[in-house]
Amino acid sequence: MTRRVAVLRIGHRQLRDARVTTHVALAARAFGAERLYLHRKDPGVVESIQKVVSRWGGNFCVIDGIEWKRLISQWRAEGGAVVHLTMYGERLIDVIGRVREHDRILVVLGAEKVPGELYGLADYNVSVTSQPHSEISSLAVFLDHLFQGEEFGIEYPEAEMRITGLVGSGEDDKG
Amino acid sequence: MTRRVAVLRIGHRQLRDARVTTHVALAARAFGAERLYLHRKDPGVVESIQKVVSRWGGNFCVIDGIEWKRLISQWRAEGGAVVHLTMYGERLIDVIGRVREHDRILVVLGAEKVPGELYGLADYNVSVTSQPHSEISSLAVFLDHLFQGEEFGIEYPEAEMRITGLVGSGEDDKG
Repeated sequence: MTRRVAVLRIGHRQLRDARVTTHVALAARAFGAERLYLHRKDPGVVESIQKVVSRWGGNFCVIDGIEWKRLISQWRAEGGAVVHLTMYGERLIDVIGRVREHDRILVVLGAEKVPGELYGLADYNVSVTSQPHSEISSLAVFLDHLFQGEEFGIEYPEAEMRITGLVGSGEDDKG
Repeated sequence: MTRRVAVLRIGHRQLRDARVTTHVALAARAFGAERLYLHRKDPGVVESIQKVVSRWGGNFCVIDGIEWKRLISQWRAEGGAVVHLTMYGERLIDVIGRVREHDRILVVLGAEKVPGELYGLADYNVSVTSQPHSEISSLAVFLDHLFQGEEFGIEYPEAEMRITGLVGSGEDDKG
């Protein structure tokens, strides 16, 4: 089964959250998601991710200014599953088997706080550890468990940049 | 074997990196590390993590203003292994079995760029996916693979806050 995964980030605040949201986007892309929807506008994030994609390949994109409730309804109407990552959810390891049965998954991440109704709109509320951490770490670990490591082999044939050998020196990037 | 893991973050810039480093610290704690060393001073990060620990329990701490080369030498002199997470490393899935043989592990994360000599000082240079992403996602996924999911059960008996049921409503925190 080809699994298609998108991420929706709710509550992003332009400028203040730009760096964290950029990390969310990079983690989404590196761990196999196809796109990030941002509930608010942030052209800076959209552009910085476009630059990464133009160098490193693939079709990942950030779509900002999304009406989040409409996106969730649409997604469910088309037969996709909605997974909300939250501390107050079922444990990842208990629920991941059921989530894997879906071939279209929308992963929803809040920023600081999320509207309470989101819990009812999601098909799954999933907690990645029972301790407070970061939406970036939740997302990456969730996707890694979802794809069971397949994402470690992601390569884009048309990429301008690719890692071809081990350990160079001097300059490092993220990862 | 009780495995003891610490994280060293190099190149953190006070204020500019405070939020990202706070996410690094939260991910380190949630995924089973014992402490975070910061190469530069940042009392704001130290304090915000102290608040989390006082509510959620455990002994995790952030120690700032560390001379990173000395820490690495000391760590190795005491028999610990040094694992540098970098795009330009051996693949996580190829190397994690060897890393698991060590009972003391120092995980080193750069901010934007790291000094080239770090590659030579580390016992392992490890890449978590071959795509650019985030040091927060690298760290979380690395620790999850290291502990093989044990960290999903972490609970601190003395915690003031603990999740006791599924899905409440309204207020969300990170995670």
